[in-house]
Amino acid sequence: MKKHSVVIAGGGSTFTPEILLMLLSEEERFPLSELKLYDNDAERQAIVGNACAIMMKERAPHIKFSFTTDPKEAFTGVDFVMAHIRVGKYEMRSLDEKIPLKYGCVGQETCGAGGMAYGMRSIGGVLELIDYMEKYSPDAWMLNYSNPAAIVAEACRRLKPNSKVLNICDMPVGIEDYMAVICGLKSRKEMQVRYFGLNHFGWWTSIREKSTGKDLMPILKEHVSKHGYLHPNLDAAHMDEDWRSTYEKAKDTWAISPDFMPNTYFKYYLFPDYVVSHSDIKYTRTDMVRDGREKRVFGECRRITESGTAKDSIFEVGGHATYIVDLACAISNNTNERMLLIVPNNGSIINFDPTAMVEIPCIVGSAGPEPLVMGEIPRFNKGLMEQQVAVEKLVVDAWTEGSYLKMWQAISMSKTVPSVEVAKKILDELIEANKSFWPKLK
Amino acid sequence: MKKHSVVIAGGGSTFTPEILLMLLSEEERFPLSELKLYDNDAERQAIVGNACAIMMKERAPHIKFSFTTDPKEAFTGVDFVMAHIRVGKYEMRSLDEKIPLKYGCVGQETCGAGGMAYGMRSIGGVLELIDYMEKYSPDAWMLNYSNPAAIVAEACRRLKPNSKVLNICDMPVGIEDYMAVICGLKSRKEMQVRYFGLNHFGWWTSIREKSTGKDLMPILKEHVSKHGYLHPNLDAAHMDEDWRSTYEKAKDTWAISPDFMPNTYFKYYLFPDYVVSHSDIKYTRTDMVRDGREKRVFGECRRITESGTAKDSIFEVGGHATYIVDLACAISNNTNERMLLIVPNNGSIINFDPTAMVEIPCIVGSAGPEPLVMGEIPRFNKGLMEQQVAVEKLVVDAWTEGSYLKMWQAISMSKTVPSVEVAKKILDELIEANKSFWPKLK
Repeated sequence: MKKHSVVIAGGGSTFTPEILLMLLSEEERFPLSELKLYDNDAERQAIVGNACAIMMKERAPHIKFSFTTDPKEAFTGVDFVMAHIRVGKYEMRSLDEKIPLKYGCVGQETCGAGGMAYGMRSIGGVLELIDYMEKYSPDAWMLNYSNPAAIVAEACRRLKPNSKVLNICDMPVGIEDYMAVICGLKSRKEMQVRYFGLNHFGWWTSIREKSTGKDLMPILKEHVSKHGYLHPNLDAAHMDEDWRSTYEKAKDTWAISPDFMPNTYFKYYLFPDYVVSHSDIKYTRTDMVRDGREKRVFGECRRITESGTAKDSIFEVGGHATYIVDLACAISNNTNERMLLIVPNNGSIINFDPTAMVEIPCIVGSAGPEPLVMGEIPRFNKGLMEQQVAVEKLVVDAWTEGSYLKMWQAISMSKTVPSVEVAKKILDELIEANKSFWPKLK
Repeated sequence: MKKHSVVIAGGGSTFTPEILLMLLSEEERFPLSELKLYDNDAERQAIVGNACAIMMKERAPHIKFSFTTDPKEAFTGVDFVMAHIRVGKYEMRSLDEKIPLKYGCVGQETCGAGGMAYGMRSIGGVLELIDYMEKYSPDAWMLNYSNPAAIVAEACRRLKPNSKVLNICDMPVGIEDYMAVICGLKSRKEMQVRYFGLNHFGWWTSIREKSTGKDLMPILKEHVSKHGYLHPNLDAAHMDEDWRSTYEKAKDTWAISPDFMPNTYFKYYLFPDYVVSHSDIKYTRTDMVRDGREKRVFGECRRITESGTAKDSIFEVGGHATYIVDLACAISNNTNERMLLIVPNNGSIINFDPTAMVEIPCIVGSAGPEPLVMGEIPRFNKGLMEQQVAVEKLVVDAWTEGSYLKMWQAISMSKTVPSVEVAKKILDELIEANKSFWPKLK
């Protein structure tokens, strides 16, 4: 089988060590010749890279490994770019959360005004990666799971229409893992789903057992109407109180559109008052992540580097991240795997903007994704999506045109922001905070 | 010239006496053979009808006049039904305003949850009038300006697709009167406009002087950016503080979409926090109307009836209501008048739902309206309209299906309501208040 050369862009991420372990665990179907880490932050890259070098040496000496901040070195001779960058890092994510909250609005990584701010930072970063890939490895594919995926994907569609970039998100995968448990299945791969929406903003319309065709929606509706996506058999160890409440709130987001199963992030759009009243502006999700995941991962990386071995490492194979390998294999081996991707609508949802980037099931082969037709969607779901897609497109307008007005319109449009006046206050503070990242808005 | 027989449905309205005077003042182009008032409220009908009978006898003894609560009598032998009904009257309007306000949301006659409640009451009332007209005068036209026009028009489109009903609103007419003053013109009829939107939810894209083709938008933008639609030469006598602030706020609603001139009611959707903070739940618009207009009009009607003459009446010709005569003449005399009507989109706005009822310029002749193509609309305006049209269609779904869920979705969708949870509280209270008007929701 062909061995692949892969670069992980955003190599200094706290997620990198476990993605690396996941890649090694999947070597049978996706063999590697070379694995490189790339980051533009030398310090974070070194912390993670040094530990990963030890892990690779101990577990996979046959794979050439390196880490670098040099784009030429990173992007030359690769088959795949796996991109999970965070422009502005946790410092800026913290402000994305806290600035909207200051005005009584949802402050969240990808939803609402904070997500738009993050989008304005991310577009340039992702486009830069695409340029590097096309310059140094013109035949490569980028598997992009950088957030906010909806805005980033729209920017790719508009500004890099012919590039080999596949935009994918792990959230439906994560929820499907939970659904499988609720249905008593071993894996989400035993399910066949239909789904429509925008990224972080969609619904499952059909969930069947693949082997039998059995409709699993009745079981799921019964369960979710009572418990959301929580289940006693679910891996509570990996779920903090914050995620717990998100999974539980699916009960309420289900109730307003009960024919379908909702993505969990609708809580930010449909219950923003609840979310805000359960937020602490002095200690938001970023603070939790930095005190938890970041300290834990970076601490472990330093420990591995200092001790010179990763044999007793706490890092585990990142379970659901195998979807990235599914995607790479689909391209490399023409597996025709059925996956949810973020692709141009092009009429799949017949009563929705054909130019919208939608999240829908696709058959993925060597030529890329072949989206399935999702047909007509109901009025309520369409209405919410129309509002949200306008937000996402206006952010990309704001970025490409350097337009203050478009960004003001985008924030004003959001379901999470109560008025044009509040939108202006948030925008003005976001501009100040993001001045070294955003294009200058006029 | 053909003389027309007209019935005014909602004859007990406080607007009826001045509409009657307006009709008399337009007799040269729209001669009447008979004028009837119809209302299902005998008491209000009698107050207004008795006074109108005296006015008619004194001013237009050649026109046969009557008032009745009997549909057969009212709708037999008429050419036009002019419909301005208010199902539930001011008692219910007051609750439409106060119930949403109780939950911190905009409480308004036609906007937000209150407007939806009113819509649920009005649909049946307007459909009933259409049935009467089609039974007793199958060749007649209904000129319908009953509120909430957006929801009523959607119900007509769906449930009476072949009926001769023209839905029209006086709000653009009223704003154009102000624009004319701002531009130093004698009348709005000296302007030729392009406009797109939903009812109470649209924008002028072009305003030109008809005789010269001169673009008036620069003058209007300059003025509105500073003063909204207020102007020293405007008739302040007819404008209370409430309307003043609505016209002034156009300054801010203009700023977020400055290529166009906004309808004034965007303040309810774009500045709901401002509106709520300037509302007094103990004394809303209905209370002002009842203490002002209703007391004044009904008092004057009683005075006329008691004194047996209307010679010194305070009633004046309702100026801008001449648009109703414009519309009747267009049908009757094939004038091909250019007017804003609420019609099925049918591709006029190419990037908007073809089944939406939109407010756009039409050429109106004997065969009805021929809408003009408005083309592609910008993303921000489309996004707002998509959200709002979903609200309006869901209300009609709720009415036709008797669906609690659809009504909950409608209220949840509104830009004026912060969350699904608040929507449910408002809905449950509206159901209780409207139980003798709404279909039963399950």
